[in-house]
Amino acid sequence: MRTGRLEAFSDGVFAIAATLLIIDVGVDVHEQRLGDALAHAWPEYAAYAVSFLTIGVMWVNHHATIDLVGRVDRGFLFLNVGLLLCVAFVPFPTRLLAEFVRTHDARDAALAYGGTLVVTAIFFQAHWFYAVGRGLIREDADPRAVAGISRAFRPGVPIYAAATALAFVTPWLSVALFAGLTLFYMVESSLLGARAGRS
Amino acid sequence: MRTGRLEAFSDGVFAIAATLLIIDVGVDVHEQRLGDALAHAWPEYAAYAVSFLTIGVMWVNHHATIDLVGRVDRGFLFLNVGLLLCVAFVPFPTRLLAEFVRTHDARDAALAYGGTLVVTAIFFQAHWFYAVGRGLIREDADPRAVAGISRAFRPGVPIYAAATALAFVTPWLSVALFAGLTLFYMVESSLLGARAGRS
Amino acid sequence: MRTGRLEAFSDGVFAIAATLLIIDVGVDVHEQRLGDALAHAWPEYAAYAVSFLTIGVMWVNHHATIDLVGRVDRGFLFLNVGLLLCVAFVPFPTRLLAEFVRTHDARDAALAYGGTLVVTAIFFQAHWFYAVGRGLIREDADPRAVAGISRAFRPGVPIYAAATALAFVTPWLSVALFAGLTLFYMVESSLLGARAGRS
Amino acid sequence: MRTGRLEAFSDGVFAIAATLLIIDVGVDVHEQRLGDALAHAWPEYAAYAVSFLTIGVMWVNHHATIDLVGRVDRGFLFLNVGLLLCVAFVPFPTRLLAEFVRTHDARDAALAYGGTLVVTAIFFQAHWFYAVGRGLIREDADPRAVAGISRAFRPGVPIYAAATALAFVTPWLSVALFAGLTLFYMVESSLLGARAGRS
Repeated sequence: MRTGRLEAFSDGVFAIAATLLIIDVGVDVHEQRLGDALAHAWPEYAAYAVSFLTIGVMWVNHHATIDLVGRVDRGFLFLNVGLLLCVAFVPFPTRLLAEFVRTHDARDAALAYGGTLVVTAIFFQAHWFYAVGRGLIREDADPRAVAGISRAFRPGVPIYAAATALAFVTPWLSVALFAGLTLFYMVESSLLGARAGRS
Repeated sequence: MRTGRLEAFSDGVFAIAATLLIIDVGVDVHEQRLGDALAHAWPEYAAYAVSFLTIGVMWVNHHATIDLVGRVDRGFLFLNVGLLLCVAFVPFPTRLLAEFVRTHDARDAALAYGGTLVVTAIFFQAHWFYAVGRGLIREDADPRAVAGISRAFRPGVPIYAAATALAFVTPWLSVALFAGLTLFYMVESSLLGARAGRS
Repeated sequence: MRTGRLEAFSDGVFAIAATLLIIDVGVDVHEQRLGDALAHAWPEYAAYAVSFLTIGVMWVNHHATIDLVGRVDRGFLFLNVGLLLCVAFVPFPTRLLAEFVRTHDARDAALAYGGTLVVTAIFFQAHWFYAVGRGLIREDADPRAVAGISRAFRPGVPIYAAATALAFVTPWLSVALFAGLTLFYMVESSLLGARAGRS
Repeated sequence: MRTGRLEAFSDGVFAIAATLLIIDVGVDVHEQRLGDALAHAWPEYAAYAVSFLTIGVMWVNHHATIDLVGRVDRGFLFLNVGLLLCVAFVPFPTRLLAEFVRTHDARDAALAYGGTLVVTAIFFQAHWFYAVGRGLIREDADPRAVAGISRAFRPGVPIYAAATALAFVTPWLSVALFAGLTLFYMVESSLLGARAGRS
């Protein structure tokens, strides 16, 4: 089977999941000016931005792995559907985080958000190591690129699990870590790519 | 006519229908902690997962049939539009199932869900047997692959009709069958593909 | 400019507009069984189906016109954006129709629905005759196919305008005509294609 | 890296953001006829149309810039994700504008709308000048086309910032400018393209 429609379907789910996030951004105007309500609603924008960028990073990584995959089998297709199921789920815990991060339910919201990212990271690893283990990688793929992705994927689950567990101590730090991990990854891989391009 | 834009449009509808499912996932927090509300809302996640995977299986099957179709005519395009109409309808009975499966209306919700799957299965058969009957299959297609798909499609309607009819006896068993059929199909076709790849 | 991304963007808008229709399908359960509420909500499903099929027909026609267009200029791109603006608007009057067709506001709902289809038909003509007039048609296009589309587009606006005007007399007949025109077109062009294929 | 999936993902976000706008178009019917409610709701349609066309113009411009980009690196991908984050955000201030433009909160709504467009224009410039500065432009690209886009992008941020600042004086003029800029751009670039085609 070709990877063309797999990419089209996946790009569709990534794009829709990211764009749907805006539906849940809203303000409540109770006897205050709109400007004040908008300023007060900042967790809505922050949650939108963090989730949009996180889905963007996942899309870039999916892009990178599928580029190395030469053919797909049913098992790979279904692991990919499972991965997309997780990506498309992200808007729900995002909504919870935006709504509850300033309440006494912040911990539960952070756990729901982090748990979703942990399960997503597990599927990300599973779909990659399945492709490697079943020999679906392109024969002309650079072995260092393949090894590099395998190495980069390994810490994903423990890091996100640790950031999620932090919510039991202090939900805000946990949430800050989710945002920080995404931004760190974006900056770091951009700089790395820039250095690699120069050398 | 080429199949390129047919695939693009179909992939779009499959991806959007699956991703839209998350809009209807929600929790009601009435004087309870968010964690308890989230735990109580498990039918929402279960319905989301079953429908997402079911749409994913349909997409994989659509992928498999269109791969064998060499050209399309107006009748095929419109049968495909009818099929997509059913796929895009799935979020509605999914919402009903999640909301009513624990009420005395579980039977009606299961009937709505199963009825949608039965009509979808009818359109799936219709668009495939139309392609076969009108000679739209690629000339270089493996006749065994064509016969295999024809054989695989035949039991779809009676099986889903039977699972739906079970709702009159016990809605929960009916719902469990919808989930089980999708999971069975995913596991079975992955193992089958793996075995076929080995031999 | 190539037509590739024009098709991708257009396919996206058609697919999303059609799939979003399901968001507005809902039932109100007031002290009645779900089954009764579902039976009573039939205008919701009917409006969903008619609008989905109408957008499907528009997509098939857009497919047919763009296939004959070899290159695009800015004016064509913006006429296409205007056409997509109308297509993406369809879910709104669909929602009105479903909600108000059984009330004393049926006429206004039918006028809103019909008005949207009339404006869409105007943009459909405009984008086609702009392509013909500005010489954007592929040089190897069959002149009979081009003339056939020009001939087929001409009656669109007056027919939809007449069906819309009928809402002043009897809204239900007007709505039945919108549904009938789409179904007639689907059946007629399928049969026509079948006959053309045979000869 | 190839630009193919970048285009697919971007086209998806542009198409979805534009098409989602219709979700927020609604009418309130309080003891008035539907026709009167529909007439009173004109800011909903105007905001829908202006935002749809503005996203359409952005898509056409994105189309034009990516056509000149030969390869992409991680930094470019993430700037593009940032740009798409802004595009996908547009439905939120659109909703605010439609709801508040006739209230004493019009100024805040216009500032939110304009601010979104200013940040979007900044990302549009950033992703283009990053591509130029990092040598991602295709080697066979016409240098005049590249210089023309650079020249066309420069006034974007100050013009949108000025239109936004006008909201402090008179929100309506500010809003009229947002609509006018989009329409002017569409007409002007269509005529320019027509003239260029003739000469």
